[in-house]
Amino acid sequence: MVMKIGVSEIEDIAVGATILGTGGGGDPYIGKLMAISALEENGPVSLLDPAEVPDDALIIPTAMMGAPTVMIERIPRGDEALASLRRLEQYLGKKAFATMPIEAGGLNSTIPFTVAAKAGLPVVDADGMGRAFPELQMESFSVYGLDGSPIVIHDERGNFVLSKTVDNYMLEWLARGVTMRMGGASHIAHYSMNGAELKRTAIRNSPSLTLKIGRAIREAHERKRNPFEALINITEGTNYGKAIPLFRGKIVDVERRTSSGFAVGSVTIEGYEENKNQTLRIRFQNENLIATVDGKVLATVPDLITVMDQETGFAITTEGLRYGFRVVVVGIPTPEIMRTEQALNVWGPHYFGYKDVDYIPLELRHKDYYRDAKLSPEKESKYRELLRRS
Amino acid sequence: MVMKIGVSEIEDIAVGATILGTGGGGDPYIGKLMAISALEENGPVSLLDPAEVPDDALIIPTAMMGAPTVMIERIPRGDEALASLRRLEQYLGKKAFATMPIEAGGLNSTIPFTVAAKAGLPVVDADGMGRAFPELQMESFSVYGLDGSPIVIHDERGNFVLSKTVDNYMLEWLARGVTMRMGGASHIAHYSMNGAELKRTAIRNSPSLTLKIGRAIREAHERKRNPFEALINITEGTNYGKAIPLFRGKIVDVERRTSSGFAVGSVTIEGYEENKNQTLRIRFQNENLIATVDGKVLATVPDLITVMDQETGFAITTEGLRYGFRVVVVGIPTPEIMRTEQALNVWGPHYFGYKDVDYIPLELRHKDYYRDAKLSPEKESKYRELLRRS
Repeated sequence: MVMKIGVSEIEDIAVGATILGTGGGGDPYIGKLMAISALEENGPVSLLDPAEVPDDALIIPTAMMGAPTVMIERIPRGDEALASLRRLEQYLGKKAFATMPIEAGGLNSTIPFTVAAKAGLPVVDADGMGRAFPELQMESFSVYGLDGSPIVIHDERGNFVLSKTVDNYMLEWLARGVTMRMGGASHIAHYSMNGAELKRTAIRNSPSLTLKIGRAIREAHERKRNPFEALINITEGTNYGKAIPLFRGKIVDVERRTSSGFAVGSVTIEGYEENKNQTLRIRFQNENLIATVDGKVLATVPDLITVMDQETGFAITTEGLRYGFRVVVVGIPTPEIMRTEQALNVWGPHYFGYKDVDYIPLELRHKDYYRDAKLSPEKESKYRELLRRS
Repeated sequence: MVMKIGVSEIEDIAVGATILGTGGGGDPYIGKLMAISALEENGPVSLLDPAEVPDDALIIPTAMMGAPTVMIERIPRGDEALASLRRLEQYLGKKAFATMPIEAGGLNSTIPFTVAAKAGLPVVDADGMGRAFPELQMESFSVYGLDGSPIVIHDERGNFVLSKTVDNYMLEWLARGVTMRMGGASHIAHYSMNGAELKRTAIRNSPSLTLKIGRAIREAHERKRNPFEALINITEGTNYGKAIPLFRGKIVDVERRTSSGFAVGSVTIEGYEENKNQTLRIRFQNENLIATVDGKVLATVPDLITVMDQETGFAITTEGLRYGFRVVVVGIPTPEIMRTEQALNVWGPHYFGYKDVDYIPLELRHKDYYRDAKLSPEKESKYRELLRRS
């Protein structure tokens, strides 16, 4: 099945991207404008199911790296990521069959559509996180053995770097350093792969889910219906699990600092209605990592934790959190490919420094809500044991 | 004329390199060992006069970037700079006719001989500074309009970066960032140029002068003759001017700190014999920049200022300066191509932050010693005016 992505789809993708971005990825506004301008000029872009990609076809993912806030001051021309893709093609000696996002969230949900519209390429309906994460080795492509390099990094002034590294941690380290010296933001092409590798390693159908979520929330908003019910309905039956409302309350404190280029901090939410007399705390590093109520863990990375405006259902990124906002905190189970042992080594709570918090799937932390959720008996007993000890 | 550079020539180049390095470029020890091993394995290397290089031949200079001190802990395999040259050839789609040093001093006087021996290439008898300087835009190639990029940067673990930048300041900024993230030292190929560009922009015959200086000092040492007289004799009549002994004394203070990756500081020398009751101070940033006696300027960058051991005549790098050393401070006039107005904008005293010190050639600061020195009447009157005001 091929979907066509035009201007109205991009509007919905931008809304859905902040939901799957779990607080990270930045405000998608600039990315949306860039994509709309490219789509208006070049017509709609095809979104291809991974199953439709030939095993030997070359896929080159494109993205922005660095601080999304920098983009607002140094607006990109829109062809920097395309330039990175073209230069990677040249280095590999092969033309790309399609491009693809590396994450679901903020700017990076729309950048590949800008590239695709300008290049006349399709976008593959998949990505490498199914959410947002802060570092380049935190991609399912890397977890399942693909080389993130060669990478090409362009800035908006015409400087570029092509690099090959011995592993994906060195890739992140070098690319981050280059991006910082380019002024804090850059445009990259990396994790080039063939169709067979794509099918083995990618998070499938996250871009189209982003679109469906965005559309459902917009329509609920327009028709004055409950956006949280719309989110629950649209996520049910997908490779993610159905969304769960975790908490309802008012933001009473936001603590935020910049550490090694990351926005690190926490938000405290005082409950009302069903959460009266309870206090929720979410700790974040660019993205929301862990939600606890009075010390009890409700949800952890890599499951998605999203703070949504109580009225509109629009998601609030971590940099947008403000005192007094009335919000609903929602969890979404991450796809199974994000929960394997090798995956959790890269982005489980332990990796982010929470050594005493084990990853336990949302469905088991909220067994009553997820009565129909299926887990293998071995997984279920392993996680039950972790839950008992936690 | 083609000279052959073998093991004994490398020994002399290593000695001469610390003289022309004016305190910078690091201890040439590791670079010497690498070159000797490559020459023993592959035989001697040809050193070509620039005049012998065809105008359309491709020259790719090779060098080490970063802190020479790092090299002692992370000994290079010796083929990293060659890998950078090969990758640059591949990018340019043309084979190199020869390699060349970018500076005279420490490690970088010998690195191109290691590369040349391994690759079976000649070395051009020229460089881009005729001395050592700390930054990539401080090369005569850059001053006279050549593009320093594309650059290839390799580390010893197999990581590499290829970069093209909009100017040579951005080149320095990006390459420095990459080098720092590679652990503080890297191996580069950059400022690729053709023979015509070489003849227009390079400092000629500095490598062979390095060799001659090293040989003269070694022979003086072996025959118990005065190494300073040997240095004066060997520099007289070259495109540099003849060396001048500026000061004789004992080091009584060394102040050194690391600032933005540079070794910044000063050394204080208490005079004896003809300099009794005088105090010399040299300020340095990796290289020696300015020598003053009791406030009076004796010599400034880009003229060469070298601190030599009073007994042996061997030069002491800025990181080797120690309390109690008995030394002779020597000045050497820099070649004319290093003294043009556009050159002084890049590496004159003003660039290094000495806003109230003008560049005045050594020959005019020490008119009696340089009775035979020739300067054009306009230059002479310009500098005399500066001297009068200083």
